[in-house]
Amino acid sequence: MIYRDIIKITTKTDGFHDLTKQVGEIVGKSGAKDGLCNIFLQGTTASLAINENDRMLIEDFKKTLTALIPDDHLYQHSENAPSHLRAAMLNQNLTIPISKGKLMLGKWQSVLLFEFDTQDREREIVVTVQGV
Amino acid sequence: MIYRDIIKITTKTDGFHDLTKQVGEIVGKSGAKDGLCNIFLQGTTASLAINENDRMLIEDFKKTLTALIPDDHLYQHSENAPSHLRAAMLNQNLTIPISKGKLMLGKWQSVLLFEFDTQDREREIVVTVQGV
Amino acid sequence: MIYRDIIKITTKTDGFHDLTKQVGEIVGKSGAKDGLCNIFLQGTTASLAINENDRMLIEDFKKTLTALIPDDHLYQHSENAPSHLRAAMLNQNLTIPISKGKLMLGKWQSVLLFEFDTQDREREIVVTVQGV
Repeated sequence: MIYRDIIKITTKTDGFHDLTKQVGEIVGKSGAKDGLCNIFLQGTTASLAINENDRMLIEDFKKTLTALIPDDHLYQHSENAPSHLRAAMLNQNLTIPISKGKLMLGKWQSVLLFEFDTQDREREIVVTVQGV
Repeated sequence: MIYRDIIKITTKTDGFHDLTKQVGEIVGKSGAKDGLCNIFLQGTTASLAINENDRMLIEDFKKTLTALIPDDHLYQHSENAPSHLRAAMLNQNLTIPISKGKLMLGKWQSVLLFEFDTQDREREIVVTVQGV
Repeated sequence: MIYRDIIKITTKTDGFHDLTKQVGEIVGKSGAKDGLCNIFLQGTTASLAINENDRMLIEDFKKTLTALIPDDHLYQHSENAPSHLRAAMLNQNLTIPISKGKLMLGKWQSVLLFEFDTQDREREIVVTVQGV
């Protein structure tokens, strides 16, 4: 069985969203008890990651990626090269197992979206459930 | 339904390839209208990424990864340690949703392959379509 | 067909484990001849990666991630922020194709687990086989 839904959100520069609840609801609607859930972000300047949703840690994520890929550096791609490069350090696609109709996330795991672009964006996150 | 094909390419040191068209053709041949496409690079010194295929940005990718993992550093693994380490910063596997027989890529997304090895390589990229 | 098993290991700070054999055994038990194998680590301070299992290279991995995300830096998240940040540079989920009942890994590819936490941990790695 394949079930699909798309999460649409408006992000702000340097923004952060926790998608765990929305993805879990899609898994619930799919009716799948056992299988896999694929989460795919249709963008090149934002990222998905599975990590702890702690406000302090989220700040550490942003600062660390800015330290590794600084703004005040000469890039060849115009405008938002650091946004692309930071996005590539994390992921645009995740696959999470499903058991008993729920995502098999660990105790501290959340599905996180980081916006790295220099302007507000409309983001679409494609959620595909394959299961039984 | 499972359909599989392997893309074979010869890469050069510091090389770059856009695989979007070839992967899309395999999805077309599979006949799958809805599902997922897994792309798996059988290597440890090259990477896959989903990002924008812009010539300037590709240069930024290479320079940024060389800045983060420099050549003129003492590594313990002989010969090509930086190639392995840069490769691990990006991905060796991607999973992209399929709808209406096509990859659900965003407007700016392409499937990119970066070669980080210090010599030319024959690369095999396994493409697996699971769908209906 | 969906088959699932969980690998449980006890890790030590700065530890490293090669999971290739255990994952391959689960694929064998599943009976799947053709399909995909998803490997999902239920943690936020450890990582999965597909790379070469060479003792020297494993040391380069640890040193490089510590150089990029140093311990002696002021983070906002208490205790183990660098563990989370290093973990996010690599992966928590991998998907590997299966053919003829075996993982389609390249010659030098192994399934590696890096522990970045500051204390010993019990880790669970969920292995899901989807195939025929």
